Amino acid sequence: MEKVKPRTLSGFMELLPDRQQQMEKIQELLRRTYSLYGFTPLDTPVIEASEVLLAKAGGETEKQIYRFSKGDTDLSLRFDLTVPLAKYVAANYARLAFPFRRFQIGKVYRGERAQRGRFREFYQADIDIIGDGALDIMNEAEIPSIIYRTFTSLGLTRFKIRVNNRKILNGFYALLGLEECAADIMHTIDKLDKIGAEKCRALLLEGGVAETKADEIMRFITFSGTSAEKLAFLDSYKGKNEVFDAGLGELGAVCAYLPQFGVPEENFEIDLTIARGLDYYTGTVYETTLTDHPEIGSVCSGGRYDNLAEYYTDKKLPGVGISIGLTRLFFVLEEQGMLSDDIVTAPCDALIIPMTEQLGEAVKTATLLRQSGIRTQLYSEDKKFKAKMSYADKIGVPFVVFIGDDELSKGVLKIKDMRSGEQTELSPDAAAKHIKTAVDERNNGAVIKE
Amino acid sequence: MEKVKPRTLSGFMELLPDRQQQMEKIQELLRRTYSLYGFTPLDTPVIEASEVLLAKAGGETEKQIYRFSKGDTDLSLRFDLTVPLAKYVAANYARLAFPFRRFQIGKVYRGERAQRGRFREFYQADIDIIGDGALDIMNEAEIPSIIYRTFTSLGLTRFKIRVNNRKILNGFYALLGLEECAADIMHTIDKLDKIGAEKCRALLLEGGVAETKADEIMRFITFSGTSAEKLAFLDSYKGKNEVFDAGLGELGAVCAYLPQFGVPEENFEIDLTIARGLDYYTGTVYETTLTDHPEIGSVCSGGRYDNLAEYYTDKKLPGVGISIGLTRLFFVLEEQGMLSDDIVTAPCDALIIPMTEQLGEAVKTATLLRQSGIRTQLYSEDKKFKAKMSYADKIGVPFVVFIGDDELSKGVLKIKDMRSGEQTELSPDAAAKHIKTAVDERNNGAVIKE
Repeated sequence: MEKVKPRTLSGFMELLPDRQQQMEKIQELLRRTYSLYGFTPLDTPVIEASEVLLAKAGGETEKQIYRFSKGDTDLSLRFDLTVPLAKYVAANYARLAFPFRRFQIGKVYRGERAQRGRFREFYQADIDIIGDGALDIMNEAEIPSIIYRTFTSLGLTRFKIRVNNRKILNGFYALLGLEECAADIMHTIDKLDKIGAEKCRALLLEGGVAETKADEIMRFITFSGTSAEKLAFLDSYKGKNEVFDAGLGELGAVCAYLPQFGVPEENFEIDLTIARGLDYYTGTVYETTLTDHPEIGSVCSGGRYDNLAEYYTDKKLPGVGISIGLTRLFFVLEEQGMLSDDIVTAPCDALIIPMTEQLGEAVKTATLLRQSGIRTQLYSEDKKFKAKMSYADKIGVPFVVFIGDDELSKGVLKIKDMRSGEQTELSPDAAAKHIKTAVDERNNGAVIKE
Repeated sequence: MEKVKPRTLSGFMELLPDRQQQMEKIQELLRRTYSLYGFTPLDTPVIEASEVLLAKAGGETEKQIYRFSKGDTDLSLRFDLTVPLAKYVAANYARLAFPFRRFQIGKVYRGERAQRGRFREFYQADIDIIGDGALDIMNEAEIPSIIYRTFTSLGLTRFKIRVNNRKILNGFYALLGLEECAADIMHTIDKLDKIGAEKCRALLLEGGVAETKADEIMRFITFSGTSAEKLAFLDSYKGKNEVFDAGLGELGAVCAYLPQFGVPEENFEIDLTIARGLDYYTGTVYETTLTDHPEIGSVCSGGRYDNLAEYYTDKKLPGVGISIGLTRLFFVLEEQGMLSDDIVTAPCDALIIPMTEQLGEAVKTATLLRQSGIRTQLYSEDKKFKAKMSYADKIGVPFVVFIGDDELSKGVLKIKDMRSGEQTELSPDAAAKHIKTAVDERNNGAVIKE
């Protein structure tokens, strides 16, 4: 028969089993953390009516959409999890309680030009809190705590949660009489990290900003110090612009409860350069960077917005949300060698290799181990001993359990720790306990190492 | 602004938060059970190259495919998880260890005519064991144990795992000299449950089967008794046809270790009427029916096949697998009122309602409860007390935690059990313990009730 080449499309991540185990562990930890903060899981369709999905979209995004017809229905694959959330909240408004807190970890689709590290199908892990008409600032204040717990649960400690407030920026530029070109200025400042202060200032001047104002802007955005010092610095602008004052009040509230939320000072920073796009966000904005890998950019970003679902409903639905681009993050972690091989990535914790014809005891042992929560495989293929052991090696199983006539007569199991090579004979119950303890210990380790 | 109606396409399941929690719980239990048996999770793309995905497909399936172009690439959405598995195994053959055991819980797509209870996007939960060249019968023998543990973990006890062997059927019809029309006969027998034995016999006669042979067939497929009695009955045909004998040997092996695998007699049955389609399966076949809901049909089916990936590779890759149509099962369970409302389906376990202006203690309490593994939400909206309590009611939270001046001065939390209405004052640590214990107890209950 003519064979078809079994290929996977470029831009689509498909992992080998050990890597997939690590990805699953990360997703499990995200689900657990988001749940701890009272977010409820949602699962919306991958396919939506184009008219619904593209109510807002335009420009670059629309070009990337996977759009097609089935029968006479115009369909599109979701390109983010925010539009489906807006649809969901608008459609189920009367049945939801607000504030509505949801998380969703799901695949989204963008037909971008394929290149290394860019994906056409990728996971986003989003949380959002949606208010009905209003949403208290405490929801914004809680977000750094969620980011902190999320990344520490994955094993990271060297990261910085950077926070700013769009009202402070808008107010500041209004103060300088630069409302008109605020968007351009923010666009320039966004490049600060890459091009440096000198170049940034030069670009501002080129853009028509007067020298004194450019200096004021540079002084403002590059002011350095602790959060308290930055808040004090910002306080010196207070009383001149209402929008600025509102933003400062919000930023103060976000900083006020960080200790009680358990966020250490060293993982948090007020960063006046962050703007996060120009339209959507209206208050607090967040970025998260890995201290040792600034080149990756932000790994968790988001902010406060005023109108989640204006294309579907007249209801005012303000919200705050953050998103992790999980597939890209995973790709980068793998590239950097930051995925820990210490957690168990084998399909099973124990591989039972029976050394007798009669398999009754081996099956009983498999059942016992499984009842103890040990992921167990019974190896029953008709192979030479060496082939069986090389299978154990290849899957990377932590323990092999031998059951032969000798063990049967003594009522014990012979277990081999595949890392140390050590073999011990234990009663079935003791063996189960031993394996479970060793495996749990390894799995309690972090999935990401720094 | 002109609004777009926020609708979800028909045939696409999108659940409200409480139902979604139940769905998540079911998926979590499936992941856990499959893992206990040494299956490793896979996650393949939803989109594949049409040439790869449709290497085998044809007829009805092909018509239902969501197929489209992006640029000059011909793409299709996966319509099952078996073809992607075949592709994966063929593509990664050298990097996998065989037997290769994988599970996948993922969405698949079929553009069927929309009707109640039929879905165009639905979850399948599949496990498969793939051998390289050969696969020992013990893998087939283990499957009933996996099905048993899967359904009991969900809370079901009243179900029957029905097993047959295609070789027994093929051998039996060969014995009768009916190889030629075996397919038609099996097709007729497949309707036995619906039309009864009389009608079934009549259809066989109509189909040209001689009366003595029709009687022999009816006697064969309707023979009733325990598994042991059925095996003994089948034994009476032994020695006349090699294929039959091979099948009987396999069926015997599948039955032999059921007690050691922990499968009770009452949940298992040899059912000689089962054939499961006509081509793909070559050995043991499985169906699972709910005792009180035969009308649903099989909720977990599968079998042994000889060639997983013949369209992609010359390697012989025999396997055995089962599949649960999860979305349809969930739909039916909901319709039957079988989803338990006893497990916690709220977004959080504890809702903290601060009764003071200063929120420091409330935030500290939220952090403490979260550290204890309690899913906690801090309610900080500026609302009347009544509105706060009606929010608590609407989300169905098990516990509300009040922190007012009175509690602050006493160093306690006032917690309200929302089911009993009981209020107690406890130290923060005691409150955490109390809430955790109560919530764990509820969540240890079954997600499905019979």
